[in-house]
Parts: sequence; C-alpha cells; structure tokens
Amino acid sequence: MIGRVTLVGAGPGDPELLTLRAAKALAEADIVFYDALVAKATLELAPRAQKFCVGKRAGRPSTAQATIHELLVRAARRGKRVVRLKGGDPFLFGRGGEEALALRAAGIACDVVPGVSSALAAPALAGIPVTHRSLASALVVVSGHAESAWQPLLARLEPRSATVVVLMGLHARGAIARALIERGWPPATPAAVVWGAATADARRWLGRLSALDAALPEDGPSGAPGTIVIGEVVSLAERLAPSQSSADEVEAVSQGEVHVGAR
Amino acid sequence: MIGRVTLVGAGPGDPELLTLRAAKALAEADIVFYDALVAKATLELAPRAQKFCVGKRAGRPSTAQATIHELLVRAARRGKRVVRLKGGDPFLFGRGGEEALALRAAGIACDVVPGVSSALAAPALAGIPVTHRSLASALVVVSGHAESAWQPLLARLEPRSATVVVLMGLHARGAIARALIERGWPPATPAAVVWGAATADARRWLGRLSALDAALPEDGPSGAPGTIVIGEVVSLAERLAPSQSSADEVEAVSQGEVHVGAR
Repeated sequence: MIGRVTLVGAGPGDPELLTLRAAKALAEADIVFYDALVAKATLELAPRAQKFCVGKRAGRPSTAQATIHELLVRAARRGKRVVRLKGGDPFLFGRGGEEALALRAAGIACDVVPGVSSALAAPALAGIPVTHRSLASALVVVSGHAESAWQPLLARLEPRSATVVVLMGLHARGAIARALIERGWPPATPAAVVWGAATADARRWLGRLSALDAALPEDGPSGAPGTIVIGEVVSLAERLAPSQSSADEVEAVSQGEVHVGAR
Repeated sequence: MIGRVTLVGAGPGDPELLTLRAAKALAEADIVFYDALVAKATLELAPRAQKFCVGKRAGRPSTAQATIHELLVRAARRGKRVVRLKGGDPFLFGRGGEEALALRAAGIACDVVPGVSSALAAPALAGIPVTHRSLASALVVVSGHAESAWQPLLARLEPRSATVVVLMGLHARGAIARALIERGWPPATPAAVVWGAATADARRWLGRLSALDAALPEDGPSGAPGTIVIGEVVSLAERLAPSQSSADEVEAVSQGEVHVGAR
C-alpha cells in the first residue's frame, strides 16, 4: 500500500481531551484535514502541518464527501503523513467509515484513533452520568439530523429503558419529545441540553421532557450545537454539579462543575 | 470544600488512548485508586503516586463500593491529590456517578475527566464503525452483567434500528441473541466479539447473530472481557480490516488493522 491516513477523533472540544495518540499524530502530521467544529487550540497541536477545513464554516457549505475522499487519497499518494481530524469519535456519526472504505478502495492504509465522544462527555461535564445504578443501565445514542435517523428507534423505545442522548438534533427536539411521550415516556422525565461541552462557553439547561420544546436557543452562545440528554439520570445533575439559578435557566458549565452566570 | 478527587477515564486499554488531561492528572497525583482492568503501563504515568487496586483481581473479590467511597474521602481529607482511575469512561458503567455523589455528600470537590469508552473503541479498532450511512444511524449500549440490565431494552428493540454494543455480557450472549431473534432480528444479522481491545492481545470474532452462542472463549487470551457488537455495520469489518483466516475464527487485531495468527 502507498501512503497512509490516520482518522483521528478530536474529542468534544477541549484540546486536553484529545488522546495522547491523537496529539502524537497531529505533532507528526504533514497535512491535516479538519471539520468545522474542531477547536483552534487543537489545530495548534499540529505546528508542522498544512491545515485545511473541510467542514461547514461561516455559512459556506461543507466540502462534498467525495471531494474529501479525493483530497485524502491524493495527499497520501504524495507520501504525506495525513491526519483526518474529526470532532468527537471518528466512527460515531463522523462518516469515518465512509472515508476509511474510500481509502481502502484506493489502496491507502488507514489507522483509526478513537476519541472521546460528546455523547458521553457532554452529559458528564454537565454532571450527568449516562448510566447509574437503579436509574439507567443502558444508553441510546441517535443522530437527530433527520427524522429517519431517530424515528425508527425512539418512536418504539420502551419508556425508561435507557438514557437517550441525541446529537445534532436540537432543531428536532419538539418532535423527539412528542414521539417519546406518545410512546409512553412520562412528560416529567428529566431532560437536559448541553451546548459547547468542553469549551469555555459551555452551557446547560435542565428541565423536563415536556418542556424540551420550549424557547431554547438553537445554538449555544458559542454557536456550538446542542446535545440532548433524556432520562432519570438527568435528575443527578443538580447534585453532582449544583447551580444556584432558578429552574429552566441556561447556565454556564465548566469541567463538570457549574458556574452560574457569565464567566 | 476540603480536598478534591478527580474521576479519570483510562480509556479502553492502550495508555496512548488516555486523554492529555488524564495523563496530567496521573502525573500530578499523590494517590491513585484504580480498577483491575487498568493496564500496568497506564499506572506508570503516575510515577509519584501511591497506587491501590480496588477492583476484582486474581480471583480476589473487589473492594466494596462503600469502602471505595471511604478511601477516596479519607485521602482527599488528608489533602492528597487523589485520582480515581477507571477503565473506559467513568460515567458509562463505571459507577462514577455513585462515587461522585458520595464525594459531594462528604463535601469533597470532584472533577470528571471523560475517557474513550470501549463501547466505541473496541468496535473501531476491529474495523467496525458503530454508525454508517444507510447501515445504522443509532447506537445502543447495554451492560450484560445482569438480565435486568439489558432485557427491558433489547427484548423490545425494533429490528435493525440501531447497532447494539454489549459490554460485560459475554456470559449472556446466547440469551441476548435469542431475545433479539425472538423480537424479529434476522438470525443472519452480522455480529462480532472483540476481546482485549486496544491491547497487544486484542482478538476478534466475526459471524452471525445466530452463531453468537457457539463455542467462543468467555475471556480473550489476555483474560480480558469481550465486547459484543450486533448490526449491519459489522459487515464492514472485513473490508475495513481484512483478515485472511476463514470465517468464525478468532483473529488477532491491532490498531484497526488485523494481523492474522499470533503476533
């Protein structure tokens, strides 16, 4: 095989939540192709590399997937050490599988460096363990980007049988809440939204499933997308990361501890 | 608050899959309380620290959860920099929530450092993306340690609505496969078992849901527990990490590439 590409998970935002192997791959990289949500400070871990954003950014459309494949293949064939850097984990909603298949098909070796997914980190840093004895022993993670992605699972999901985490689904929060309530989930089921997890602008909202559709910003203050968490485990957030604000307010969050108000 | 404990995810096995923040917390730690599955090389990242295993080990029972809470509180009160090191992520089946609550109740500050979960990394390193366009847009993670943990979710899970990952459930693989097939999952649904993900002794088995109960070792060659993966995405493993062994054989795996036979 000629050339090699490393698919690297950048974690949920904070560069300190990259893995040691990810940091090493970045330090040695000649070229980095990164997604829009990757933090600037993370890119600084690749001082030698040429860096290309291939994600949606500043209103401009994202690079087509086929073009990304071509860019990766071409760079690898030139003998470059190529890193494909993706927010979270490359194989959980990262389209990493498609890129790995395209590389294989082109005869390019492909390594994967798993990352910390915001499906776990966003709840954790907001004081929510996704599993907890007597509250939840299972986790469901869905993409909310299209109804066809979450509907087949959530519309039939046994009430309280799992903690539900929805990534990229804030726009669909009303439909998701209605689908679960229609399926029998209690409207009072605790629910949370976390924006910009593992960034200085992290915010959380704690409430109930029935209130999920209420007026919440689509994007956090940082423009970061929101992670939805639904289930009894959300009731632990106040104890694990206490706030002093009244209910239903959006609060600042940092490192698993909540700082009320602006930071 | 007096003292502080950091709950740290050690990732799936390989010390290089620790986060930068986890490595920093270990480097600065005075005391580390670690679980049995944490690798020796990971503990070497804490050269200054006293280290105590509080997990099940060499046939001896694990330390009672209440005793762990007491040890953490006592160490923090002595002003020590305490790290509680857990395999994978501390809040996904790690009982991290219970420990964080106990610390809060004792007035001890508690930080969380999310980790790479083997629920994602074990499949990824064996060539299986847990989501993939047109194959799966959702992920279900359950603990197989008790039937009450997985049965309410899996026995009613819409066929092919998600990739299913079972941690700590190899002993229950037959019952799990039967429950899914009874619910309508095709017996030919691709399935995999990965042992010792992210270790030098990693192994995988690729087959079908109907064959999951067949003669497989309960533990991998390293004594590591197995991760079960069920869903169409498993069909990508052969293309993403090709093997030359015949079907249904247990193969060695490393870094997302498969090495057939002994290493």
